[in-house]
Amino acid sequence: MDAGDPLRSFRDRFLLPDGVIYLDGNSLGPLPRATPERIAAVLRDEWGRALIRAWNDHGWIDMPRRVGDKIGRLIGAAPGSTIVADSTSVNIFKCLRAALRLRPGRSVILTETGNFPTDLYIAGSIGEASVRVVDDPVAALREDVAVLMLTHVNYRTGAMHDMATITAAAHRAGALVLWDLSHSVGAVPLDIAAYEVDFAVGCGYKYLNGGPGAPAFLSVSAAHWDAVRFPLTGWLGHADPFAFDPSYVPAHGVAGAVVGTPPILSLAALEVGVDLMLEAPMPLIREKSLALTEQFLTAMQARGFHSITPADPARRGSQVSFSHPDGYAIMRALIARGVIGDFRAPDVMRFGFAPLYLRYRDIDDALAIVDDVMRANAWRDPIHQQKQAVT
Amino acid sequence: MDAGDPLRSFRDRFLLPDGVIYLDGNSLGPLPRATPERIAAVLRDEWGRALIRAWNDHGWIDMPRRVGDKIGRLIGAAPGSTIVADSTSVNIFKCLRAALRLRPGRSVILTETGNFPTDLYIAGSIGEASVRVVDDPVAALREDVAVLMLTHVNYRTGAMHDMATITAAAHRAGALVLWDLSHSVGAVPLDIAAYEVDFAVGCGYKYLNGGPGAPAFLSVSAAHWDAVRFPLTGWLGHADPFAFDPSYVPAHGVAGAVVGTPPILSLAALEVGVDLMLEAPMPLIREKSLALTEQFLTAMQARGFHSITPADPARRGSQVSFSHPDGYAIMRALIARGVIGDFRAPDVMRFGFAPLYLRYRDIDDALAIVDDVMRANAWRDPIHQQKQAVT
Repeated sequence: MDAGDPLRSFRDRFLLPDGVIYLDGNSLGPLPRATPERIAAVLRDEWGRALIRAWNDHGWIDMPRRVGDKIGRLIGAAPGSTIVADSTSVNIFKCLRAALRLRPGRSVILTETGNFPTDLYIAGSIGEASVRVVDDPVAALREDVAVLMLTHVNYRTGAMHDMATITAAAHRAGALVLWDLSHSVGAVPLDIAAYEVDFAVGCGYKYLNGGPGAPAFLSVSAAHWDAVRFPLTGWLGHADPFAFDPSYVPAHGVAGAVVGTPPILSLAALEVGVDLMLEAPMPLIREKSLALTEQFLTAMQARGFHSITPADPARRGSQVSFSHPDGYAIMRALIARGVIGDFRAPDVMRFGFAPLYLRYRDIDDALAIVDDVMRANAWRDPIHQQKQAVT
Repeated sequence: MDAGDPLRSFRDRFLLPDGVIYLDGNSLGPLPRATPERIAAVLRDEWGRALIRAWNDHGWIDMPRRVGDKIGRLIGAAPGSTIVADSTSVNIFKCLRAALRLRPGRSVILTETGNFPTDLYIAGSIGEASVRVVDDPVAALREDVAVLMLTHVNYRTGAMHDMATITAAAHRAGALVLWDLSHSVGAVPLDIAAYEVDFAVGCGYKYLNGGPGAPAFLSVSAAHWDAVRFPLTGWLGHADPFAFDPSYVPAHGVAGAVVGTPPILSLAALEVGVDLMLEAPMPLIREKSLALTEQFLTAMQARGFHSITPADPARRGSQVSFSHPDGYAIMRALIARGVIGDFRAPDVMRFGFAPLYLRYRDIDDALAIVDDVMRANAWRDPIHQQKQAVT
């Protein structure tokens, strides 16, 4: 299967350590081979030689928009809809406050149980709104809902929502939608403009391979460009930042969602990852992703692991997860043997499958190591119980 | 004077381009020689080899606090008071909202005319407060003022406030203070704990030489650690981020001001700049800074340039500025000849003096180029009138 894989050449575009089967690209994507050279050039040729002039001469000032538009192509956003700025959490805050302003008289943020904590925390911090957290958000769409906020692919289970149907239902109820694409972008086909998605955010360090803590993106439908107002009114979101006007005049559309000076080194690394992703046809990524997850899911279930990921491929992102009371220690034992997934409290073992650098044979190799860990009860070694700062 | 300069060896710690006299370190500090090697190691050895494990194995998860504490030493903050996160603009937002919560019943943010625009814009975005912008903020301290927000060294004029006196006056009036140290940190002595400064923020890419868009810092007095609540409740500011608790429980003190995942590459570059700054004794930096600014200011005034920077050294940061109706074209002509300062609308030419890499002879050389530009009317060349994106 690897010999016939149309994506097989992409693996060489990454610097992957020996002895590792990396099934955690849903948490931190690996290092693209082109990144060190690009960052060295940004350091020596741009920052080092051009100094302050690099903002003009090397286009730094346009990077939030330029890299944003590239990500826009990956999510099916219209050109000019997407910028890179801040973190996903901060971008959720901007979008929720902006959505509430666009729906005066409505004061509810609707979301679902099990959404990623930061999404829930940020929603809860917005004083002028109440947050309604339910199991079935579509059934809970009422006339007081200003915005429905959902994560497209769930971080724990890997379950994927039907974005088209849910967005249409929200719109019929007069609500806006905010989709968190952190676990979707670069992993599954996205076409947010076709579904008239109002707001979308997502992070750059998972399937986009943009590097640790890569800045996040934010996208706004063209339908809202005239009316949208973002709450964090920083100088780079001003219509004319270098006028140093004492009054804030927002830049039009999504440009008003830029706040402060962007972290250029991290943004340049993100651009390398995004450029690489744009070379790979998304239908092929999705096809291989489903083959990889299916192969692993079926084999793990045959070994008695309890999947919490939908069996239906159409409802699955690019990860599979299993609940296991000893999941933490098992995952630590797997990691010690080079099979890197991760653990989410209280009992979830997560495995992500990024088609650009994973081979079909990696699945077989990973499963052999799973067998080894389970057969020998190797995970019972006390060293695998020790808590780490990041799990 | 260069031969007797106790800081002279620091110049070799930077990669400075030939043919440039860099007087814009107040906007973007130059590249430390150690930065490319450090970033290459973060890329290849940490991200590349350790992948997700680097959050534990290479201490990424502690970087906001670790680098924050290093900056804390530069500003005289108590250990554990300072974190690195987000941009200065976003950190101002956090501090203003936190300050308002700490002073219930008071609803005014007091600041001064001519403060940096982003500070004013962010203050204006906070719905529950009104912003009072005055020429003399100390005289305007009333019982309704929750927080006095000032920039310590003004970005246009280089004028420096008396932090001790103003902070004491604000406290006598029952108000908290937020100092923006963007143009102070690494340039002038700071001792915020001694003055019981409540909140401080600042940026990492000016005198700290942390790289373009380096993340910013935020510091909170220990007096407020128990009561302070920040408005952007992101998952990394949770008391136990990896519990993935659906409810937000803030981390204690300044740790609750962390929001999303920090941009590690930009943060690592910042740490190199901060480490370098910590090697240089601040009294020597201040002494040389005043000698350099005095030399340049006096010589420019003798040439008929109108200074808008205080003549009193005690009231000056590490930059000098001149207003000139043709300031834009003159600055462009200077830059074309390698003397790099910058321009701020409508008519301000700014020159920053960073003692770690500037020599006394650079001042003489810069002045000779000023003379050349003015004598030949070289700045009248139409090419120097053309607007650039970043001025």
